[in-house]
Amino acid sequence: MKLIHDPIHGHIELDDFAVRLVDTPEFQRLRRITQLGLVFLAYPSARHTRFEHSLGTFHLARMVSSHNPGIEDGVSYAALLHDLGHYPFSHTLEALYQRHEENTRWALRHGEIGDVVRERYSLEEFLGLLKHPLVSGDIDADRMDYLVRDAYYTGVAYGIADLDRLVRYLHYDGERLVVGEKGIMAAQNLLLARSMMHQTVYQHHVSRIAGAMLTEAVRLEGIPLEEIRTMDEVDLMARLRSSGNPDVRELIKALDDRRLYKRVLHSGIDPGEERIGELKRELEMEFGHLALVDYPSKPRFEEKNAFVLSAGELKRLSDVSPLVRSLVELKDTYWRWGVYAREDVRARVEKFVEEFLHSSGEPFAKLVG
Amino acid sequence: MKLIHDPIHGHIELDDFAVRLVDTPEFQRLRRITQLGLVFLAYPSARHTRFEHSLGTFHLARMVSSHNPGIEDGVSYAALLHDLGHYPFSHTLEALYQRHEENTRWALRHGEIGDVVRERYSLEEFLGLLKHPLVSGDIDADRMDYLVRDAYYTGVAYGIADLDRLVRYLHYDGERLVVGEKGIMAAQNLLLARSMMHQTVYQHHVSRIAGAMLTEAVRLEGIPLEEIRTMDEVDLMARLRSSGNPDVRELIKALDDRRLYKRVLHSGIDPGEERIGELKRELEMEFGHLALVDYPSKPRFEEKNAFVLSAGELKRLSDVSPLVRSLVELKDTYWRWGVYAREDVRARVEKFVEEFLHSSGEPFAKLVG
Amino acid sequence: MKLIHDPIHGHIELDDFAVRLVDTPEFQRLRRITQLGLVFLAYPSARHTRFEHSLGTFHLARMVSSHNPGIEDGVSYAALLHDLGHYPFSHTLEALYQRHEENTRWALRHGEIGDVVRERYSLEEFLGLLKHPLVSGDIDADRMDYLVRDAYYTGVAYGIADLDRLVRYLHYDGERLVVGEKGIMAAQNLLLARSMMHQTVYQHHVSRIAGAMLTEAVRLEGIPLEEIRTMDEVDLMARLRSSGNPDVRELIKALDDRRLYKRVLHSGIDPGEERIGELKRELEMEFGHLALVDYPSKPRFEEKNAFVLSAGELKRLSDVSPLVRSLVELKDTYWRWGVYAREDVRARVEKFVEEFLHSSGEPFAKLVG
Amino acid sequence: MKLIHDPIHGHIELDDFAVRLVDTPEFQRLRRITQLGLVFLAYPSARHTRFEHSLGTFHLARMVSSHNPGIEDGVSYAALLHDLGHYPFSHTLEALYQRHEENTRWALRHGEIGDVVRERYSLEEFLGLLKHPLVSGDIDADRMDYLVRDAYYTGVAYGIADLDRLVRYLHYDGERLVVGEKGIMAAQNLLLARSMMHQTVYQHHVSRIAGAMLTEAVRLEGIPLEEIRTMDEVDLMARLRSSGNPDVRELIKALDDRRLYKRVLHSGIDPGEERIGELKRELEMEFGHLALVDYPSKPRFEEKNAFVLSAGELKRLSDVSPLVRSLVELKDTYWRWGVYAREDVRARVEKFVEEFLHSSGEPFAKLVG
Repeated sequence: MKLIHDPIHGHIELDDFAVRLVDTPEFQRLRRITQLGLVFLAYPSARHTRFEHSLGTFHLARMVSSHNPGIEDGVSYAALLHDLGHYPFSHTLEALYQRHEENTRWALRHGEIGDVVRERYSLEEFLGLLKHPLVSGDIDADRMDYLVRDAYYTGVAYGIADLDRLVRYLHYDGERLVVGEKGIMAAQNLLLARSMMHQTVYQHHVSRIAGAMLTEAVRLEGIPLEEIRTMDEVDLMARLRSSGNPDVRELIKALDDRRLYKRVLHSGIDPGEERIGELKRELEMEFGHLALVDYPSKPRFEEKNAFVLSAGELKRLSDVSPLVRSLVELKDTYWRWGVYAREDVRARVEKFVEEFLHSSGEPFAKLVG
Repeated sequence: MKLIHDPIHGHIELDDFAVRLVDTPEFQRLRRITQLGLVFLAYPSARHTRFEHSLGTFHLARMVSSHNPGIEDGVSYAALLHDLGHYPFSHTLEALYQRHEENTRWALRHGEIGDVVRERYSLEEFLGLLKHPLVSGDIDADRMDYLVRDAYYTGVAYGIADLDRLVRYLHYDGERLVVGEKGIMAAQNLLLARSMMHQTVYQHHVSRIAGAMLTEAVRLEGIPLEEIRTMDEVDLMARLRSSGNPDVRELIKALDDRRLYKRVLHSGIDPGEERIGELKRELEMEFGHLALVDYPSKPRFEEKNAFVLSAGELKRLSDVSPLVRSLVELKDTYWRWGVYAREDVRARVEKFVEEFLHSSGEPFAKLVG
Repeated sequence: MKLIHDPIHGHIELDDFAVRLVDTPEFQRLRRITQLGLVFLAYPSARHTRFEHSLGTFHLARMVSSHNPGIEDGVSYAALLHDLGHYPFSHTLEALYQRHEENTRWALRHGEIGDVVRERYSLEEFLGLLKHPLVSGDIDADRMDYLVRDAYYTGVAYGIADLDRLVRYLHYDGERLVVGEKGIMAAQNLLLARSMMHQTVYQHHVSRIAGAMLTEAVRLEGIPLEEIRTMDEVDLMARLRSSGNPDVRELIKALDDRRLYKRVLHSGIDPGEERIGELKRELEMEFGHLALVDYPSKPRFEEKNAFVLSAGELKRLSDVSPLVRSLVELKDTYWRWGVYAREDVRARVEKFVEEFLHSSGEPFAKLVG
Repeated sequence: MKLIHDPIHGHIELDDFAVRLVDTPEFQRLRRITQLGLVFLAYPSARHTRFEHSLGTFHLARMVSSHNPGIEDGVSYAALLHDLGHYPFSHTLEALYQRHEENTRWALRHGEIGDVVRERYSLEEFLGLLKHPLVSGDIDADRMDYLVRDAYYTGVAYGIADLDRLVRYLHYDGERLVVGEKGIMAAQNLLLARSMMHQTVYQHHVSRIAGAMLTEAVRLEGIPLEEIRTMDEVDLMARLRSSGNPDVRELIKALDDRRLYKRVLHSGIDPGEERIGELKRELEMEFGHLALVDYPSKPRFEEKNAFVLSAGELKRLSDVSPLVRSLVELKDTYWRWGVYAREDVRARVEKFVEEFLHSSGEPFAKLVG
């Protein structure tokens, strides 16, 4: 057994098998994948990594399992390894490549860590454990850890969750995780916290702009999936800094020096995928890498599978909580798309976008301040 | 100037006039009025008093005023004195007497503290300041302090608010307090926090039961308003312990020893004020002080006067936040009425209430566990 | 099993026997005995009670026992009940009466709580458990809880201890509690924390002055031990407020209104017990209750029985830590005696004390500011 | 003015000149220099950087200056830039190169940031400000920030300081910073905290071993000062990973995968610089990069220039505090030198070192566990 000091959970206990999983190159790589990608350009102290988060997720899974004998041991190991496939800067590059979950499966199939896993589990069995509600559900160990951890490292209070109560009142009925009566408020709070962290931290416009710049650099560099999925942040940054393409080098130097593109547009009115595609093409022809369109998919905050026991009956959390029910509306309230441009061409890009939108009768509101 | 150490705000600075207000018997009495009344029977560590809370409210009002020159100095002193009129155990006894705000006005008119106030303000002027939006509004110094303080002392995380952001982004436009764009999430969070603390802490059933017992004891003792509004908790408890009425002594001894009445009924279905009145009368005839009906008014969580600046426009917080909008529904979700009885007569009271409700076709669900 | 929410330890689990001990009048009385007596006049937020502290001590004892099978169950119950005998306002009145430990034994012998204890333990056996090193030693559950709790409620950071590490590395060898290598720094920190809290909080001069006033009031009232040891703070305050002796009523009114005596002298130079006795007599003849001498015994900070394992060898903590070794010197650095007087006679008392000390050639330094 | 969110200080306000300093490549580079170097291999969550720490130091310097008009504005900017010259992984590589303070001066002389500085200050003037007691003294803004920040990010409680009190009671007398009476305990606590963090965190043996490995890799790679002093951690790691020297690549791969050398010896008995020199040479001849000697200089904990006002007199902190006085002894208590070896040669290295020490009659104690 090994003890790891952690500011969120105090001490995390790793059993021998967990230590062996942690002591692989694939897992150690997570020390060099920041949890929140480029959010540190908005919240400088957000430098924590997928490594600590993975340990914390394991810890919480263990705590829930300890009073739920129906949850098999392997679930905690799946919790430990659930983020193995993240790209450098976490979610930032998922617009260019497949989702990180695919890479997690790939790493388990092909990496040194897969050999350790296979000492105890068949690969199929273990991939199944990654879908356990304690690893990927509305109220799971992953979310419990990341909200509290991100709140701690950014100093943004909204992520604070009552982990003690959640852990204590999560019951596994063989199929679902069900929150007991005394944990309902804590479960509601977890979902609300997520929506507030989304808006305040995860989708902070500074991080969106920087993300668009990094994504453009990687696209221009043309790094194949086979390479990037094993890179860490040192590899990626070094590769881009020494690129043969001067546009790539310029973008990375600007990120390093935090000379970010400016917002030309930041709007909640959706012109639709097709029009956005046109705008992208036209902007690229006119401005190349100097103007970028950021068109994220709409966030989903609604409860999908959070079950609670209320007065002895199994219900959905959204059935008993008006607040959770109203989360579905945030999809539109919080969603924004943007156009960003290098400072010196900002005015020209603005004019260009304004005309583009006018041509189809869409509104364009100038950004003030 | 005087410095007071406080775990919530670090140090609180009191200027000379504030020190003179604090150094009066009326203000010092607040040291012996617990902030959360009988909640300590559910959360033993909730022993903080109106004294610390009043200092904290003053501190926050000062912080907001410091960058809002339009808010006059007197508002902070009004914040300091806003809770002067609380009864022993705070809100618990307001069912029997007038609201505590009346007593605050009375104390300012008749107490030693009024003499200090009048050195600077006419009484009418000062009573007006008590209605300033920074002292009594949806996003006011009072609420900011009590939520964070109650969360700290109970250890229930939901009350945590981002005071730093709120203080920084509250602007006074000469009439209203308006929350700037960057403070909107913090303001939303404050209202959500309040609704969660209400349910988890303020209306905890243990505190409701104890409150019903104390209220009955005070009612039986027949203490006139003129006496109780200057009593502190020592006075009240000593008076009830030495009552000539054995029922009063029994109720107080039970509270002291935490031998609380049991819940016979705890329901969200409202039979209406009239039926409740009948039930009360019948129960009293049959069981006297051994069975108590607790019929609180419905809580109001909706935003009433929280203004925000969103994209340069003055709006209501509920216009920009679906979560705040849905708070209005909690009135019904969280409201409960109850019947409590001494353990030895519980079964008989249950039968009695069941029959009473049946007679008018109302449902009666047995409490389990 | 019962769960109690606590801001220090999260949730405290009470087993059925612990619940039965807690549900006695003697234990519930601790809800009305403040942990830090009159310290709240210096740190207004320090309103926590012996009740929470006793639960916390039980909790920590349980945690240490859980990985030390050599510690029998009864030790945790002894930890729970170790403070049963405190007087109102805790240590304040111990100058007038026997130490509170005597009362704890008395309550176990004569109280309702003793009946519960005797269901499992003989009285002698249980009294023996109160001396277990986990209940009364240099590194014990009592001290671990009170330092952290007092730091939390006063907001004074020095009391913060690394409870997690201490609990984890405390080993019981059948006779002694021994701190493992990885816990040495945490153990050293605990002793340092105590010395810093002593000076900053426990012996704050405001609390010493108020304590001297309360002690004088109780002395004048002449309450016998048989009465006071079962009183709570409501009983004592009510008794003193309604005293037949106007001096007592005056002292208590002054405490209630926080109109405290002023310091005439506050000195680290010890004139010796005999001279102090003379001074007391002469001051009393001249000024009665208006001038009070406060002559506390010297505090002891040195390590007495903190054992550690260092490089595999059993040692004293002071053998491996120069900082702990130097704690012995604080006895003189931190000790002060004082003379306090009602404001209107302060100048006259000062002159009197100055002459008294001069007559024996002792120095008298005027207090400035 | 710009606001930066920080979990330690809430919000940090940067004035326009500070923003211009921060917006230079030299300052932005600090985002890629971790505060605690390789300590994250022992405390995974310690991923904070010199960037946040520099902002925090600026903030505290501003707070102290705000009530000390004698401290000129430039001191805060010096506090902001004091760490500009750190190498990748902070102090780790200072054994191979000049102290980082030299590089700070070099960067100010030659970097883009120097141009900004010179708009307001002559270079000589600004270099002088770097020696102000608020920037480099026993109780300075640097130390206040790093202790609290390192405690926060590692989760090790010992670094907690009472910043609020320190800031409030630091007075500048035109030459010295003097701690007022009410801040003495906070100042003592700061020095004690430093000694405890040193032992528990800064000199953790895991970080010492990793540091020795990195130092060896850089030495073998032979990077000149002119290059390394402008590198960030991405540059250095990328350079070492792609080294032409296979020993360098092996060392870095081992660090990346956390396959650290094992301790062969870890001792507080000092054989003297000369013998250590011999041992190094002999080990290198025999084992090359597979065995490393770590011989740090003795740490200095004693107070050197912490002045306090005690009873109106200017004194040294060590004159009034026995605990601070005893810090001088920790130099020997906490110092250790070590020999580390790759696991497969560990036994052979142990035998070699044992014989080497025996030959001069020096003791060699085998490491257990």
